[in-house]
Amino acid sequence: MDGPALHPDVAPLGFLLGSWMGEGKGFYSTVAPFEYGEEIRVWHIGKPVLAFTQRTWSLDDGRPLHGEAGFWRMAGPGSVELVVAHPNGHAEVAEGRLEGTSISVASISLTRTSTAKQVDAIERDIRVDGEIMTYELRMAAVGQPLDGHLQAELRLGATH
Amino acid sequence: MDGPALHPDVAPLGFLLGSWMGEGKGFYSTVAPFEYGEEIRVWHIGKPVLAFTQRTWSLDDGRPLHGEAGFWRMAGPGSVELVVAHPNGHAEVAEGRLEGTSISVASISLTRTSTAKQVDAIERDIRVDGEIMTYELRMAAVGQPLDGHLQAELRLGATH
Repeated sequence: MDGPALHPDVAPLGFLLGSWMGEGKGFYSTVAPFEYGEEIRVWHIGKPVLAFTQRTWSLDDGRPLHGEAGFWRMAGPGSVELVVAHPNGHAEVAEGRLEGTSISVASISLTRTSTAKQVDAIERDIRVDGEIMTYELRMAAVGQPLDGHLQAELRLGATH
Repeated sequence: MDGPALHPDVAPLGFLLGSWMGEGKGFYSTVAPFEYGEEIRVWHIGKPVLAFTQRTWSLDDGRPLHGEAGFWRMAGPGSVELVVAHPNGHAEVAEGRLEGTSISVASISLTRTSTAKQVDAIERDIRVDGEIMTYELRMAAVGQPLDGHLQAELRLGATH
């Protein structure tokens, strides 16, 4: 564990740090249900922000499915901010609450490139219990109402 | 060089792939000029998108300054899309042109979290000549007009 100390501003988010591996289920009114493997890496460089990358792959054949990259910030006690770049051309800005090791954020803006499908809202609930992370993601996209889309459970593999 | 082949949709952007290291200069009407070291990593996983992370540090004392993460996409021949998450709470969506190994993109949206400073526009010119990448970044922020902000030169260190 070399590197700078965790900035005190993001110390309440320190439980997210590390490499997480697990599996999830995807579903939505417009797609066939699917199962995926997932790796999430969360790190810091001593600044008041946590960086993360995430990738998923199909449990059928291992082909890559999705990936995200972004940053977690604290906006004040219990107040969380999230910025995410999506490979399919979306940029997500979300805000919400942190209580203990549970986070709930909802998008306040979803912008996109000209060729990206329309996504109107994303809500994320993330919970860490010891070395287990679970999350649920709800989405409103392509004209559909907000509905469950992803649900996964991951295990902490490495803390740095 | 293991891993999947580069997706043909992003083959025109293949010249960006690799790890780039170099130095740059920062300036803006609201800050003292500064010099920075920089590392840019660009990779792919076989999908029609390139992923990248970037980080800079002060040449004075090595302290980390900035970092970005995002994705490059092609929207058609010569047409480029960029999505970037910024650690200071901004999400950037940009579009522009690719000619040979020169890219010029301008932001079409800049969204932000509640605690982030206002940034109104970012323009990026990137050029690769062999193993040398140079870029210029112009920015309109905190009430100032679009103006030069960053200029850097990097060298290709590793292709994967």
